[in-house]
Amino acid sequence: MTTAPAHAYNVRFLPSGKAAAVPAGASLRDAAALAAVPLPFPCGGAGRCLNCRVRIVDGLAAVSDWDRRAFSAADIERGHRLACRLAVFDDLAVECPTEAVTNKGEHGAEDVRRPLFTVRAVDLPPPTLALQKTAAERAFPGAAAAVARDALADLARLDAEGVRRFSALCRGQNVLAVGRDGRFAGAAIDIGTTTVAAALVDLATGETLAATGALNAQASFGADVIARIKHTIDHADGTATLARAVLATIDEAIGETCRAAGLGRDRVAALALAGNPAMIHLALGLAPAGLARAPYVGVTPGGFTLAARELGLAVYGSAPVFVLPSIASNVGGDCIAALLVARLEEREGVTVLIDLGTNAEIVAGDAKALCACSTAAGPAFEGATISRGMRAGPGAVDRVAWSREEGLAVHTIGDAEPRGICGSGLLDLAAVLRRFGVIDPTGRLLPAAELPPGVPGDLAGRITAQGKMTAFDLGGIAVTAADIRQLQLAKGAVAAGVGTLLEHLGAKEDAVETVLLAGAFGSFVRVESARAIGLVPPGAARVAALGNAAGRGARLALLCGEARERARALAERITYVELANNPVWRTLFAEAMRFPE
Amino acid sequence: MTTAPAHAYNVRFLPSGKAAAVPAGASLRDAAALAAVPLPFPCGGAGRCLNCRVRIVDGLAAVSDWDRRAFSAADIERGHRLACRLAVFDDLAVECPTEAVTNKGEHGAEDVRRPLFTVRAVDLPPPTLALQKTAAERAFPGAAAAVARDALADLARLDAEGVRRFSALCRGQNVLAVGRDGRFAGAAIDIGTTTVAAALVDLATGETLAATGALNAQASFGADVIARIKHTIDHADGTATLARAVLATIDEAIGETCRAAGLGRDRVAALALAGNPAMIHLALGLAPAGLARAPYVGVTPGGFTLAARELGLAVYGSAPVFVLPSIASNVGGDCIAALLVARLEEREGVTVLIDLGTNAEIVAGDAKALCACSTAAGPAFEGATISRGMRAGPGAVDRVAWSREEGLAVHTIGDAEPRGICGSGLLDLAAVLRRFGVIDPTGRLLPAAELPPGVPGDLAGRITAQGKMTAFDLGGIAVTAADIRQLQLAKGAVAAGVGTLLEHLGAKEDAVETVLLAGAFGSFVRVESARAIGLVPPGAARVAALGNAAGRGARLALLCGEARERARALAERITYVELANNPVWRTLFAEAMRFPE
Repeated sequence: MTTAPAHAYNVRFLPSGKAAAVPAGASLRDAAALAAVPLPFPCGGAGRCLNCRVRIVDGLAAVSDWDRRAFSAADIERGHRLACRLAVFDDLAVECPTEAVTNKGEHGAEDVRRPLFTVRAVDLPPPTLALQKTAAERAFPGAAAAVARDALADLARLDAEGVRRFSALCRGQNVLAVGRDGRFAGAAIDIGTTTVAAALVDLATGETLAATGALNAQASFGADVIARIKHTIDHADGTATLARAVLATIDEAIGETCRAAGLGRDRVAALALAGNPAMIHLALGLAPAGLARAPYVGVTPGGFTLAARELGLAVYGSAPVFVLPSIASNVGGDCIAALLVARLEEREGVTVLIDLGTNAEIVAGDAKALCACSTAAGPAFEGATISRGMRAGPGAVDRVAWSREEGLAVHTIGDAEPRGICGSGLLDLAAVLRRFGVIDPTGRLLPAAELPPGVPGDLAGRITAQGKMTAFDLGGIAVTAADIRQLQLAKGAVAAGVGTLLEHLGAKEDAVETVLLAGAFGSFVRVESARAIGLVPPGAARVAALGNAAGRGARLALLCGEARERARALAERITYVELANNPVWRTLFAEAMRFPE
Repeated sequence: MTTAPAHAYNVRFLPSGKAAAVPAGASLRDAAALAAVPLPFPCGGAGRCLNCRVRIVDGLAAVSDWDRRAFSAADIERGHRLACRLAVFDDLAVECPTEAVTNKGEHGAEDVRRPLFTVRAVDLPPPTLALQKTAAERAFPGAAAAVARDALADLARLDAEGVRRFSALCRGQNVLAVGRDGRFAGAAIDIGTTTVAAALVDLATGETLAATGALNAQASFGADVIARIKHTIDHADGTATLARAVLATIDEAIGETCRAAGLGRDRVAALALAGNPAMIHLALGLAPAGLARAPYVGVTPGGFTLAARELGLAVYGSAPVFVLPSIASNVGGDCIAALLVARLEEREGVTVLIDLGTNAEIVAGDAKALCACSTAAGPAFEGATISRGMRAGPGAVDRVAWSREEGLAVHTIGDAEPRGICGSGLLDLAAVLRRFGVIDPTGRLLPAAELPPGVPGDLAGRITAQGKMTAFDLGGIAVTAADIRQLQLAKGAVAAGVGTLLEHLGAKEDAVETVLLAGAFGSFVRVESARAIGLVPPGAARVAALGNAAGRGARLALLCGEARERARALAERITYVELANNPVWRTLFAEAMRFPE
C-alpha cells in the first residue's frame, strides 16, 4: 500500500472507460458511485456478501482480509479485489464484471386503444408586416396558447429557417412538439431495483424502435429497496443522491435506445415511468422513508404527469412524463403495468398474477373484486440467498431436466462453464429431485443412504455431503439442503400469499382458473417446475408466463389514454392485503412450505 | 487611482448593502449588474446620458472626462461619479440614488367574475396498517392524482406531524397547494421596462395584501427595450443574462410584498405576468431578437401557463404562472391587462385607450371592432429627451398651473427643491403657455419680444434666452423651445396614432366617446392639460385617467377565469395596425404636431 498526501486520485473503470477523481483513502465503492458505474453491493458495502468483485489492472491496491476470504491467492495476485473494502491510494484502472446486465427488455405490441398522440402535418405561412403574428399563431390560428413552451422556440427556429410545412406532435388540442419530420418517440421506462428497462416507441405508429436494460446505478447503495431507503434515512442528502443515481441510469438507458434507433434525444417527447414505489419516490426526489416503517405510507400514489424538465432528464424539456400509479407501499406502478397487460378483470374465473422480481407481488381476482399483496420472496428466486446462487447471466445454470433417454441435462446461459445457479435452474432441479423423492415432502434433501428406491443412478451418484450437510453436485456447483430450504421458504411465502388473497376474495383454491407469471424471474421460470414444487395453486386450469409484462404495460400507459384511465381505476379499486402479522397468511405458510406429494 | 495586480475587489452598494467582487479594471456598471443593484443606464453605459450618478463614500476612484461634464468640481470632490465610466481598482463603498423607485403599484379591487381558486378545509384520516394509503389518497379519495407534486410532499409532512385537518388551495378538481392555515397568496406582476410592479393578493378573498415596485435590474443593459434586445443580439449569453436580471427583480419584488404581508414565499401559490413582449420573452428566457426587426415577430404570443419552478422563482414550485397574451410584437400583455380593466368592448360608442409608458400603446374601438397600434412617444413624456427632464421622483416639477389669484404655481414631488421636470409638469406648462399664446399653434416658444398682448407678467418675466434659444425659467429649471418641440413630436405621434386607428375603424374623430389614459405616465397626466395640448381627440365627451390599469388587470387575470378567457379573446380579435411606413399616420402626424387653437 502506498501512503500519500491527501490529494485526488483518478480511477478509471473498464470496459466503460468511465472515470472519477477521489480523495486519497476514498473507497472504490464511492469512486464507482461518482463515476456512475453500477457495481453490485447487495449488502450495502458492509464487506459481507463478497459480491462487488473487480480486478485492478493498473495501479497499487492493498489486500484486505475480506479479499483473502473472497479470492484465491492466485486471483489476488492477478489483481482481484472487493470494491467495497478497497481504499484508493493510487491512480487505478479497474476492470468491472459486465455479466450483470442481462434480460434486455422485450416489448410486445399490445392493442393500443384510444391512442393519446397524433402527428399532424402543419402549414406555416410566412410572417409579413401585415401579419405580425408569431409562428405559433400563424401555424395554429386561435390555438397558439396550446403550444408547449419548448415547441414555441423550436417553431420560431423553423420559421426563421424558412420551413413552411412541418410536423406537430399533438395530444388532443395541445401541441407538444414540432419538427421538420414526423419522427417523435416516447420512452417506456420500468425502473427496477436492479435493472432499469427502457423501450423507445414511435409515438405515431406505436412501433418499438429500440429497447435496452441498464443496471440501476443505485446498486452501489445496496441491493434491495430496504438498504436504499436506509441510505436516505442515514444520510441528509441520501434521497437526492439516490435520485441522481437512478435518473442518470434512466438517462443512460434512453440514450442507448436513441443511439440504437438513430434518433436525437430531443425527439423523445413523452415518457411513462413504472416501478416499485420506492424507485418512483426516488426518481421524483421524494423521501421514501415512510414506505419502510409502519404503517407503510409513501408520499405519492403516482398516477400524475409532470414535465421531463422537472426531472432534469436529457430529453425534450416539455415532454410529459406519466408516472404509473401504485397500489400500496410495496405494490407499485410496475405491478399496475403488468395488470394492464394481464387484464385480470376481463378474464373468465379467478386469475392470479404473480410478479416475481426482487420482491413478489401477487394480485388475485376477477371482474368483481381484485386484491393484492406482497412478500419478500425474491432474493432466493434471484439466487441471492443460495450458496452458489447467481443472477441469470453467462455461466448460470438456468435449466435442469431429467429424461430416461438423456439422463440429467444441465444447461448454462451462454453454454458457458457453470459458475453458479440462478432461480429457474434451482426450481427445475427441485422439481426433478422431488419427482424421484430425493427431496421429501417436508423439503429435506435426503442423504445417499436414505434415498428411496427408483432414484436414477445419475442422480443418486451426485448426492454428496458438505460437512454435515447433504448436497447435490451439478458439475462443480453444489446445491445444498440449506439452499432447498431457502427455495422452500420462498415458494411457501408466495403460495401462502396466493392463499391469503383467495381467502380474502372468499374463493376456494380450485376456483383459480389461470395463473400468470410475470416479472424479472417469473418470465424465465418453467411452468411445469413451478407446478411441481407447488409455487402455483395445483388446481389452476392454466399456468402461463407473461414475459416482460411490466415493460409492455408501461408502453401501453405511454401510448394510450384508455390504459392510463384503467391504471388509475385499478390502483383505486384493488384492495391491498397486508401479510405482516396476518394470521391467515401465517397459518397457510406452515402448510405451503411442504412440497406436493 | 490605485493600480494593482489583477485581482478581485469588493464593491458594496448602499443603502441596500448588496455587494459584488469584480476583477481589477471592471466597470462599476458590471459590479452593479453582478450585485443586482438596479442603477439606471438609459444610454446602455455609453457615457452619453450622464444618468448613472453614484457617490463613492469609501475607496479610491479615478475622475473621468465624463465625470467633469456631469458634476461640479465640488461634487467630484465629494465623491460623485458616473458608474458606467468608473473602472474599479480599489475596494469601494458606493452610495446609489434611491429616488428612482417611485410609483409603488396601486391595485384597486375590480369585480372578480368566476374566481379560479377556492380554499377548502380538508380532513386527513390517519394511516393504519389496514389503510396503507398516502396522505393524498386519504385526504382526496379518488382524486389523489390531481394533487400537485409539491403538495404531495407538503401533505406527507403535515400527516407525519399528526395534522388531521388542513387547508387546500384548489382550482376546480386540482389541488394546487396545502397548508395548516388557509393563507394562500398570488402575485400579479407587471414587468415594466423600467419598473417591475408586484401585488400580493389573497387567493381566497381577492384582497390585496401588499404591493411594491422595484427597478428592473435589466436597467444596467440600457433604458429601453431596443437597447436590451441589442444586448441579446450582441452577446451569446445576453438572453440568459437579461432573463436572470428580470427574474431576480421579480423575485425581489415578491419577497418585499411577502415581508410586508408577513407571509412566507412558499405560500405564493399562483402568479400572473403582464409585460411588453420583450420583457415577457426575456422573463421566459426566449430570444427577443425577432421583435426588433421586420417583420417584427416574436417567439411566443403568451396566453399560457407554466410552473413557477420552470422560471426558478423562489415561490411555491408548483405555482402556476399565467402569462398574459400579447397583441403584437410591441403591444403586450400589459396592454391586454389594461383592457381587462378598461372593458372597451362593453362601453357605449368608440373608446380610445392610451397606455403611456416607456412606449405609447393605443387601442381603439367598440363591441364590434378593436384595433391597436404602438408609437415610441414615451421618452419625451418620461423626461428622457428633455434638457432638464427627469423621472417622476423627489424634486421633479410635476404640476404647473396659473390662476389670476395665485399667478404661476409650481409644484415638485415631495415639495423638494426643484431638480428637473417630469412629463406631467411639462404637459401642464405647455398647456399654460399655449393658453396665453406664449407657445404658438406651430409649437414655437415665443421670445419675450414677440409675446402677444395679455400674457400675465409673472409668465412673461420668466421668458429668457439660452444662447439663441428661447427658454422658460421654472425657478432654476429652464424649459427650452427645443423641449417644447420634443413634447410636440410625442403628442403628435400619439394623436396621429389615434387618428390612424379611427381611420382603420372607419370612425370620425368626433365619434370618440371616451378617452382613457393609463400607464406609468398616463396615470399622472392631468386630463385638462392633455386636452389643452391636443394629446387626446378634442371632441371626446369624456377623458379619464385609469390609474395603474395594467396592474389591476394582472390581478384580474391572476384571480379569475373569465378574465383569462377575455384576455385570450382580446389578443385574438384585436387587429394590429403598423404605423411604420404607414401613409395615413404620416399624413396625420404633420397635422397632429400643431397645438390646438
